Amino acid sequence: MSAFPSLKTRMAEISHLEMASAVLNWDQRTYMPARGAESRAKQLATLAKLAHELFVEQKTQDLLAAAEAEAAGVDADSDQRAYLRVARRHMDKSVKVPTSLVIENTEVCSLAREVWAKSRQDNDYASFAPWLDRILHLKRQYAHALGIPKDGCLYDVLLDDYEEGMTVRTLDPVFTDLKTHTIPLVAAINAHADRVSNELLTRDYDESAQAEFSLAVIQELGFDLSRGRLDKTVHPFCTNFATNDVRITTRYEKNWLPGALFGCLHEMGHAFYEMGINPDYESTPLANGVSLGVHESQSRLWENLVGRSHAFWQRYFPRLQQTFPKQLGHESVESFYRAINRVTPSFIRVEADEITYNLHIILRFEMEQDLLNEKLSAKDAPAAWNAKMQQSLGLVPPTDREGILQDVHWSGGGIGYFPTYTLGNVLASQLFAAARRAMPSLDSDIRTGIYSPLREWLRTNVHHHGKKYPPATLIQRATGKPLSTDDYIAYLKVKYTAIYRL
Amino acid sequence: MSAFPSLKTRMAEISHLEMASAVLNWDQRTYMPARGAESRAKQLATLAKLAHELFVEQKTQDLLAAAEAEAAGVDADSDQRAYLRVARRHMDKSVKVPTSLVIENTEVCSLAREVWAKSRQDNDYASFAPWLDRILHLKRQYAHALGIPKDGCLYDVLLDDYEEGMTVRTLDPVFTDLKTHTIPLVAAINAHADRVSNELLTRDYDESAQAEFSLAVIQELGFDLSRGRLDKTVHPFCTNFATNDVRITTRYEKNWLPGALFGCLHEMGHAFYEMGINPDYESTPLANGVSLGVHESQSRLWENLVGRSHAFWQRYFPRLQQTFPKQLGHESVESFYRAINRVTPSFIRVEADEITYNLHIILRFEMEQDLLNEKLSAKDAPAAWNAKMQQSLGLVPPTDREGILQDVHWSGGGIGYFPTYTLGNVLASQLFAAARRAMPSLDSDIRTGIYSPLREWLRTNVHHHGKKYPPATLIQRATGKPLSTDDYIAYLKVKYTAIYRL
Repeated sequence: MSAFPSLKTRMAEISHLEMASAVLNWDQRTYMPARGAESRAKQLATLAKLAHELFVEQKTQDLLAAAEAEAAGVDADSDQRAYLRVARRHMDKSVKVPTSLVIENTEVCSLAREVWAKSRQDNDYASFAPWLDRILHLKRQYAHALGIPKDGCLYDVLLDDYEEGMTVRTLDPVFTDLKTHTIPLVAAINAHADRVSNELLTRDYDESAQAEFSLAVIQELGFDLSRGRLDKTVHPFCTNFATNDVRITTRYEKNWLPGALFGCLHEMGHAFYEMGINPDYESTPLANGVSLGVHESQSRLWENLVGRSHAFWQRYFPRLQQTFPKQLGHESVESFYRAINRVTPSFIRVEADEITYNLHIILRFEMEQDLLNEKLSAKDAPAAWNAKMQQSLGLVPPTDREGILQDVHWSGGGIGYFPTYTLGNVLASQLFAAARRAMPSLDSDIRTGIYSPLREWLRTNVHHHGKKYPPATLIQRATGKPLSTDDYIAYLKVKYTAIYRL
Repeated sequence: MSAFPSLKTRMAEISHLEMASAVLNWDQRTYMPARGAESRAKQLATLAKLAHELFVEQKTQDLLAAAEAEAAGVDADSDQRAYLRVARRHMDKSVKVPTSLVIENTEVCSLAREVWAKSRQDNDYASFAPWLDRILHLKRQYAHALGIPKDGCLYDVLLDDYEEGMTVRTLDPVFTDLKTHTIPLVAAINAHADRVSNELLTRDYDESAQAEFSLAVIQELGFDLSRGRLDKTVHPFCTNFATNDVRITTRYEKNWLPGALFGCLHEMGHAFYEMGINPDYESTPLANGVSLGVHESQSRLWENLVGRSHAFWQRYFPRLQQTFPKQLGHESVESFYRAINRVTPSFIRVEADEITYNLHIILRFEMEQDLLNEKLSAKDAPAAWNAKMQQSLGLVPPTDREGILQDVHWSGGGIGYFPTYTLGNVLASQLFAAARRAMPSLDSDIRTGIYSPLREWLRTNVHHHGKKYPPATLIQRATGKPLSTDDYIAYLKVKYTAIYRL
């Protein structure tokens, strides 16, 4: 008897439990009545517990070991070997972390999220600080349990959960490079801030008209409603229950048109990834995007490289004018294009433009390392935050609420997560440049509404592989080179030099 | 160490898996993109398999046996004893059914539902027939696995899943009684069919105005949106994931006002039951309504005894007129009351009036027995359906879509389910008569919009108990007598003699 089919059956059950959890989470964030929360938490806890137990129990470990022994002679590039590699990676991580630490982490993070929500609301960082300390302490224990690589650091262990193989050593030059090139660019833009206004985006835009327009656009771009949905939530997200069932959400703001518009394109990019994965990988460890950074590259590519391009709006601006004749009837595509690409230093990461966004991320990346390495205490973190903001963006948040308390991530234990956002930006440009080399007509295609070649290129080179290749291998295969900021920096310089006539 | 707490922990996990399945089912019927069906079937199959395995595994059986031994001296009327009685009933059924049959049943039914939806839409019974055959075959296997009682029949085994203790032997005289009294009543009404018109219900009623009115009414009657939702589906239903998370659905037809209106009241009645169950029973075998018949009594009570009463519309007709001034502005509450109570033989069960409704059920009850007993093949079923319709209602459906394809039940494996609808009609009248004896002001309360006394009476006498008492015991306690058609037949005769001036 071959062990691999039995392992696959077992792993498929675990995957089904995880997908069921995803449905329950989606429902909780879209449609669940408020008072359903207490029971929902118990249902989710049970699903997570059963999935974990099924995975780490001796029988699964034995099946995995036996399947590995069987596969010794199998082609190293086969799906089978990739399956076992990913399963092993997950197993090794799961068995090394003591259950007591997992439980404590879940409990602390659950409480910390509530403390954070209240402290943010009350602008009371002091009450959150001890919880941040506890989380940092747990993260250090976690990293030590998994084992810190000889040539690496504690932060590398956390990074690896979100971006396999990524290290501080790889990230540092990338981020330094970005700072070197974007800080002067932002300064130059600031000196001519008056050249671009975004007032036209802040007019009254009816919510249901926004929804209708956004949905029509993403459908034309290829979002297939027989395989996905768009719903409304407070915090937009993408989730998937199968390659043929991928859900995205958005929020609508009456006086901020880009929110829903680019939010939809962003989540659509995530959705295309999940919809494009090899259907043979369904219910296996190879399903799902390979890393957060690569995932974010797909959302950013559609949101920014396509969605904030001049070519795209040559096609869509006339339609947007038809949807909002009173608000946009007398505007030009040029002024709309400039408005949606306005650059301005601001306090809030999620509202930042393409260029300054990365400075928000780098700040967090630096602070996370200092906090983890105990060079900085949680107590002193707000002062450090504000000093860094002053340095990189020339601003100091008037309150912690608009500073260190703005993001949910740390309170939920998400340390090492932020860098993947900027990795996504960098990779989006690197992939887009590779796509353009393969398809010289790409820009004119975008202008004329031909999106399937780009979609197909991404599907073939990125989506299809799921988790088969580690991120670095995937990027090398798709773009012919390792992670590099060249394409991204060139893109930013060309685009914004033109917009701001620098 | 006491076994009962450990049993409860284990049973709570099983309940959480079942509630997760309910969420996945709800999603499949409300919002899931069409092509998600295949993966969803697998996810549901895994959840059902794991719940079944957890329940029937030796450890659970041992815990149940130990808990039973511990409880020997405990008050027979206690929740603990009721818990163990219900768990034992379920266990005895579960251990007899092979896991493979449970899995096959879940998968087949999930796919069959999709086939049914399409075949109904396309009026293409032929594509559904082989699925009905598969389902019937599985049901026969199931009944034989459980064991057919010596003094009973195969159909009794299926009935007992929906209505504990119910048998063909008990149902036959109830149904005969109904036929005896209602066929002449329908004949007398038919002779004066021209005395009631429902034309006013077939005017153009805007869907969103219907939705707004229906939602406002059920909220006034006590449907709490912090504990429930109303959504739109092809086939209306009620489901629950917790006493504080109960979902109902309806459908809107532009030229048939009663569809959504009474559909909402009907599902609201089901929802009140689930929302009213003792919160201590959450995640235990005592949660949920005790049987489908008792459940249906709650929906029918609000839909018909309240919703189709003259008293109710004295309050709500003026508001309905305000919602639809063009359509109803010149109508009287009297003509509206008569219209919504028009009796006329028709094709569609869910649109049938109170009297002929039961003839639809009796048709299905008879066909299910013939199909199960292989006196009738799935292939020949549409012809048999049409012949029976001709016999009992004097009509032949022009298409299968208006005939055998109209209901979702068989496609979901619900065979033995239909009789509980008529049981519900009978019990609704029996309970309403008991409530009226306890609250002489009931009719004037309904007229003046005071609904909480009726809601509370039902909660105290029916809802609160969950599955604590078997249906027959519950009915005896609540009404002072066993199941009886007396109140129902008296109600129908008085009401319709007046409406039709017989």
